[in-house]
Amino acid sequence: MSEQPRVEIYTKTQCPYCDKAKDLFDSKGIEYETYNVTGDDELFEEMVERAEGRKTAPEVFIDDELIGGWDETAALEETGELDEKLGLVTDGGSETEHRKLIIAGTGIAGLTAAIYAGRGDNQPLVIEGDEPGGQLTLTTDVANYPGFPEGISGPDLVNNMKEQAKQFGAELKNGIIESVDADQRPFRVELTNGDVYTADAIIAASGASARTLGIPGEDELMGYGLSTCATCDGAFFRDEDMLVVGGGDAAMEEATFLTKFADTVYIAHRREEFRAEQYWIDRVHEKVEEGEIEIMKNTEVTEIHGSQEAGVDHVTLVENEQGHPTDRLDDPETNEFEFDVGAVFFAIGHTPNTAYLEGTGVTMDDEGYLRTQGGDGGGQTETDVPGIFGAGDVVDYHYQQAVTAAGMGSKAALDADEYLEDLERAESSAETEAAAADD
Amino acid sequence: MSEQPRVEIYTKTQCPYCDKAKDLFDSKGIEYETYNVTGDDELFEEMVERAEGRKTAPEVFIDDELIGGWDETAALEETGELDEKLGLVTDGGSETEHRKLIIAGTGIAGLTAAIYAGRGDNQPLVIEGDEPGGQLTLTTDVANYPGFPEGISGPDLVNNMKEQAKQFGAELKNGIIESVDADQRPFRVELTNGDVYTADAIIAASGASARTLGIPGEDELMGYGLSTCATCDGAFFRDEDMLVVGGGDAAMEEATFLTKFADTVYIAHRREEFRAEQYWIDRVHEKVEEGEIEIMKNTEVTEIHGSQEAGVDHVTLVENEQGHPTDRLDDPETNEFEFDVGAVFFAIGHTPNTAYLEGTGVTMDDEGYLRTQGGDGGGQTETDVPGIFGAGDVVDYHYQQAVTAAGMGSKAALDADEYLEDLERAESSAETEAAAADD
Repeated sequence: MSEQPRVEIYTKTQCPYCDKAKDLFDSKGIEYETYNVTGDDELFEEMVERAEGRKTAPEVFIDDELIGGWDETAALEETGELDEKLGLVTDGGSETEHRKLIIAGTGIAGLTAAIYAGRGDNQPLVIEGDEPGGQLTLTTDVANYPGFPEGISGPDLVNNMKEQAKQFGAELKNGIIESVDADQRPFRVELTNGDVYTADAIIAASGASARTLGIPGEDELMGYGLSTCATCDGAFFRDEDMLVVGGGDAAMEEATFLTKFADTVYIAHRREEFRAEQYWIDRVHEKVEEGEIEIMKNTEVTEIHGSQEAGVDHVTLVENEQGHPTDRLDDPETNEFEFDVGAVFFAIGHTPNTAYLEGTGVTMDDEGYLRTQGGDGGGQTETDVPGIFGAGDVVDYHYQQAVTAAGMGSKAALDADEYLEDLERAESSAETEAAAADD
Repeated sequence: MSEQPRVEIYTKTQCPYCDKAKDLFDSKGIEYETYNVTGDDELFEEMVERAEGRKTAPEVFIDDELIGGWDETAALEETGELDEKLGLVTDGGSETEHRKLIIAGTGIAGLTAAIYAGRGDNQPLVIEGDEPGGQLTLTTDVANYPGFPEGISGPDLVNNMKEQAKQFGAELKNGIIESVDADQRPFRVELTNGDVYTADAIIAASGASARTLGIPGEDELMGYGLSTCATCDGAFFRDEDMLVVGGGDAAMEEATFLTKFADTVYIAHRREEFRAEQYWIDRVHEKVEEGEIEIMKNTEVTEIHGSQEAGVDHVTLVENEQGHPTDRLDDPETNEFEFDVGAVFFAIGHTPNTAYLEGTGVTMDDEGYLRTQGGDGGGQTETDVPGIFGAGDVVDYHYQQAVTAAGMGSKAALDADEYLEDLERAESSAETEAAAADD
């Protein structure tokens, strides 16, 4: 193996995506240097310059080459290019390893499934996916996961569950599932890095990823003032006006959180009513009374303006039909107005990560969420392909709580265990019959 | 108020029902003396004598009168007689208090519902029921509740959740719901002690109670060598042969636990296959190899013989049709044989505590389990009576895990919150219309 290239990571304090990047290199046994830019203006300027104007952390460099933030690093990992750049690629045919059970995803659902499947002696292989630890790693304080009266941080809860799963014999592996072939049994599972496994059963617990709007300016400015993670990037835009887009729990939580840094936080929501829980609506209204948050209902973002060098400059907003025309309107005909903000945060929901199951015959809805309870076994997590189970945010677009994901993960492991036992019984009785026929 | 009568409780170390008894008196602000009989033969003999031959703890006395164990104490509490004996009865009409949400039960499902409902600002009143803390208080070590890699004891997990629920504004109250009147809105909720509440919504999380067989000897010997809780009573029958009846997780767990005390533990199961998870079957088979457990499949208990003075002497067992005749048979015609054991533990499942919902129109199955997902709102915990929700062991006879109960509790609170918000909106718009009509 050639000598390891030099890896550098610019980080900041309280930065979940920085931790993800470090975890990724740790999992590969790669050493790296970190530079924490929090409170160090000089270092921050250095990062912005080396990162060609990008102001978000992490920024990753390999042998002085700018890789980018977490998204870019994860994208390279997905194609196997990261391993190439790190000199980790070994030639030679990849062997196909057989596992009883493969679990896709290491969020709360996947890890709980791993705990139960490990305990059930099904020796699960857990593929971490492109967001190891899942959504909860982005949550600073989980107050409503039952059992922790003092609360617990998302990363701590995830790490506890990882440790618990490993204790019961689960094996966690960095990687992303590219495709599942359900035309053959055992299933053929191919990873983006080329590794191939066969598996008797699969639990899809690969979660959901933050959604974007697909509007002009979005692709260009993502990571340059536009973000899907307030807790990750909020502190970079201190004393600026910030815009949060959305009307659910996440939007309320992020807006409340951002008041720590922002001059004023604006919430643009396309409907009249928020669909967040009362707790968060109350918190937001307190901040409205204190003058820290301002709410714009029936308002949609149609364009984000700015540049990678200078960040976000302003957005174009439109009051829709239910809107109450405000004096902000530039053009009362189109209900359109330009609005100055220094940062934009999308909190508009998620898209399930289920593309790798296309072609397996698993039924999904229009958005890609898995339909479960479709099986004959009566289990709540069965898809309509026997042996493939679903749990967590790939199924549930309604409750989406840590504890509901955990509950489903447990059910999926128990359902899979029943399936695997039936399979084993069927195989051993087939062997007995074959042996009898041979006599 | 008259002077408090003298309350005495004989206890033992690691005795969940003793803790329940103490908690009950604590909740009433009643002082009591405890005598721990563990390892104290003299004290144990004293208890057996005062308790008229009963060898199980707790044994409760009020002013020297034998009340009995937890079951008898709870039965008196249910009828209000306990408060009479304690001089706690106050005359005067009981007022009807209104609550937005009443939660029945303080097991994992009820407490998780309370955490979420508290956080949702629905100020839940949580009625503890006749087994405060639920089934989990009888479990020494919960290894598979996600988030605790070192494991956590059942009582500790329950207490953590109680504290968490209280922090978010839930109010816990000792009592048992007698009936719910769903013909009037708000619902009328009557407790067995005569207290009456009205409530806009109800979450039934009242769990399930240990099942018995209804065979001769059972009523007479319950508490005198026959038990439904190995962790509570196992240590009383040290060095005796013990019989565990059942074939699920609970039966395997209890049999494994009892090997600490028993000469030999026998498991009688009426089927050929255990339906326990592999983990527990493996543990049991290890003990079989070590000569500590012996398994009798296709075998049913038809009678328990003994006396309250001398405890269990032997049982009558029958090998059913699938059985493999053993040399134990006394009468090959009837497949019957007598079998000497010093203690019998039932681990044959549970009956849901849903009697108080009869007459409400809530659909139940033959065994009394609630049918959910019946509502129009699309919530998974809705019964077919709008405003009544179900979570935990009153609904789920399949998975029955702490974390699945927690998941359902969370869902029930979120479903109830949605229902309550719709109700509030409907009421306020009705008021607006009425006011408009008045003008």
